[in-house]
Amino acid sequence: MTQRSLKVALLGGGTVGSQVARILLDDADALAARVGARLELTGIAVRDVDAPRDVELPRELYTTDAQSLIDGADLVIELMGGIEPARTRILQALRRGASVVTGNKALLAADGAALFAEGERHGAELNFEAAVAGAIPIIRPIRESLSGDRITRVLGIVNGTTNFILDAMDTTGAQFADVLAEAQRLGYAEADPTADVEGHDAAAKAAILASLAFHTRVDLDAVRCEGITSVTAEDIAAAKDAGMTIKLLAIAELVRDASGTEGVSVRVHPTLLPRKHPLAAVHGAFNAVFVEAENAGSLMFYGAGAGGAPTASAIMGDVVSTARRVVAGGPGRVDTATRDLPMVGPDAITTSYSIGLEVADQPGVLARVATVFAENGVSIETMRQSVDGAEGLPADARWAAEGRAELRFVTHAASEAALAATVAEIRNLDAVRAVTSVLRVEGV
Amino acid sequence: MTQRSLKVALLGGGTVGSQVARILLDDADALAARVGARLELTGIAVRDVDAPRDVELPRELYTTDAQSLIDGADLVIELMGGIEPARTRILQALRRGASVVTGNKALLAADGAALFAEGERHGAELNFEAAVAGAIPIIRPIRESLSGDRITRVLGIVNGTTNFILDAMDTTGAQFADVLAEAQRLGYAEADPTADVEGHDAAAKAAILASLAFHTRVDLDAVRCEGITSVTAEDIAAAKDAGMTIKLLAIAELVRDASGTEGVSVRVHPTLLPRKHPLAAVHGAFNAVFVEAENAGSLMFYGAGAGGAPTASAIMGDVVSTARRVVAGGPGRVDTATRDLPMVGPDAITTSYSIGLEVADQPGVLARVATVFAENGVSIETMRQSVDGAEGLPADARWAAEGRAELRFVTHAASEAALAATVAEIRNLDAVRAVTSVLRVEGV
Repeated sequence: MTQRSLKVALLGGGTVGSQVARILLDDADALAARVGARLELTGIAVRDVDAPRDVELPRELYTTDAQSLIDGADLVIELMGGIEPARTRILQALRRGASVVTGNKALLAADGAALFAEGERHGAELNFEAAVAGAIPIIRPIRESLSGDRITRVLGIVNGTTNFILDAMDTTGAQFADVLAEAQRLGYAEADPTADVEGHDAAAKAAILASLAFHTRVDLDAVRCEGITSVTAEDIAAAKDAGMTIKLLAIAELVRDASGTEGVSVRVHPTLLPRKHPLAAVHGAFNAVFVEAENAGSLMFYGAGAGGAPTASAIMGDVVSTARRVVAGGPGRVDTATRDLPMVGPDAITTSYSIGLEVADQPGVLARVATVFAENGVSIETMRQSVDGAEGLPADARWAAEGRAELRFVTHAASEAALAATVAEIRNLDAVRAVTSVLRVEGV
Repeated sequence: MTQRSLKVALLGGGTVGSQVARILLDDADALAARVGARLELTGIAVRDVDAPRDVELPRELYTTDAQSLIDGADLVIELMGGIEPARTRILQALRRGASVVTGNKALLAADGAALFAEGERHGAELNFEAAVAGAIPIIRPIRESLSGDRITRVLGIVNGTTNFILDAMDTTGAQFADVLAEAQRLGYAEADPTADVEGHDAAAKAAILASLAFHTRVDLDAVRCEGITSVTAEDIAAAKDAGMTIKLLAIAELVRDASGTEGVSVRVHPTLLPRKHPLAAVHGAFNAVFVEAENAGSLMFYGAGAGGAPTASAIMGDVVSTARRVVAGGPGRVDTATRDLPMVGPDAITTSYSIGLEVADQPGVLARVATVFAENGVSIETMRQSVDGAEGLPADARWAAEGRAELRFVTHAASEAALAATVAEIRNLDAVRAVTSVLRVEGV
């Protein structure tokens, strides 16, 4: 076995950091054989050396002096999370020529370009497989395996909390607030669930995936983001009736306007998917990313999207790959955006929509609603009627029994502008009591 | 844009080769931006310059002089297939220090170690993403993304022809021979389907996956291989009744004997899978690979396993990654086996089995069969009765009506030796007319 060793500094001793340290210590011999050098964990930088930890590790590894760890390191693993001081620490490491492995999606989405540029200047690599979809290898497949293809679309379930909630709503028929409370009790949702349920976490991951898939810079502020807080048990039940399910999707798409100019659309929103779509079978807190490429066709990557050990697996894959490169010599592998595609707004995208209406039980309502669709150039693909609690009766009798009816329309592909105009006019019809939901549809 | 260019030699102008050449020519600018150098296709070595081709390409690219192409190349793409002359050509390229990209699973499974050793001697890379599961990135995720984890098991649907046939049998209820004929008519199966339906193609891929997953040499001759020719419509129907489906799986497993010594089991056989298992949802000619690792947990990779464009996508991913490394400088990335684990035979493996029996309609048959299981230490998990064509009648009446019955047992995990002894004894019972099937069960 080789005598050479690489000094590895670990910044952050939380759930993932503890698991990374455990693997570095427990699997040292196997890792050394794969890398061609021993990976020597020189220390774990934390805020409080005496804080309680998930994993029992030698106490002398902990330090509050991140700077000294970085100064002596060949390779730095950043698992502090957040923007600062993570950003400063990563820049310090890269400027010393030390390669960095991170799982910090918020930082990469907000300021990735500056970090990559700094790495390139100093011949240091910045790897980040753990930043998107936990243990699932998706960054490397997009950066390398698909580098000779042309990716046209990425659809991802990249937030485990929201998938857990939507899946539980689908299974139990419960409302969002009740399922969220249960998810918090089980540890699948944070006490403050905003970043997950409002889609911000997914938006950061969508921005990272889009920038890699389309070789361009992506402005996180230009990512359209809609969370799952307004998805109701009735939406889910109606989706089920139609052979569909609702998932929070991160969507990155290469689009071409009428003049042939390419742009990138990146958005996060609750989406109706046919149950036969591969992403519809992703249950619980699992993640999956569906990639469409011109030559490869459709690919899907599935696995655990979070958790200490799965995320540590992704971190360690980057550590071993990066360390091998350091041992072999030569400059670090850097991605720079080769294009600067414009971000396009919702008007450049057409999708199918599902629209739920509560209407008065009057003759001619459907005709009036259908006329509004037609006048706005939005074509209807299907229409369904449903009323809770009166399944045994024919639709007309149910409507009469309750004096109201619910209509669910699915449209053909329409622009957001045409859809918004349609919905606004429908809302003003006397016979329409409420527009109960407007959801986008993919995969049909 | 950079002026530098890399000379790329293409060996083989068939379905995949034609698509690779098309991408190199059509996407030259985008590829140059990603690589940092232009990829100049210097020629396509073929046996017959005038043979008809799938894709219209400049005629002057074709040559029969593979040697001259290799002599001038920075990067060689081998798509001839088969052992010779592919082996000789790849060795010639590696000896010149030219990196090689290949999709040649037969050659890699038979002689990969010698090729990798030659590459390492000359600082040349040998990449082969296209060798397993077509467009699906699986080689690189195992070699790199999971290099810091400990893979314990790989289950793959890695042969599209057999998955197409089994899926069609499952959908239509038809027998193997009829579905094979239809698959041949549709172009999903070759005129001589032996390599696919007997599992040889899957066995070569299993050997490659096992060697990468477990960092060891794998002897192709030690891979147990059983094809799908004896799978009957009755097996599929019985599987359906039990909420299962039958897939041809390539299985690579890290096993530990009673003394704790590790070994590797690699096998290919038709396998009963619960319908809720992610691999059960892989339909038609699609491929998927399910990976279990200690820290990552369960991962699945899904996509097109064959076809010109999808396979070309995998080839081009390797070409771009390899070319970037050549442009950056430094030695090529080489995998060497870091361990030399023994291949273990079937006796080291325990699995559940499904056993189908045709028995006489006599009292006490079940008791006699159950006694044989018990005496051989094989524990029964479930037993079902079924008789074709008499579904409306209760089981006893059906048996009596036909004078025969079919019994299907699913066992708890048992060794192959114990199972074989059990089946041999059962076959000798007077009341047993035939053992109609013995199938392994996974994922329960």
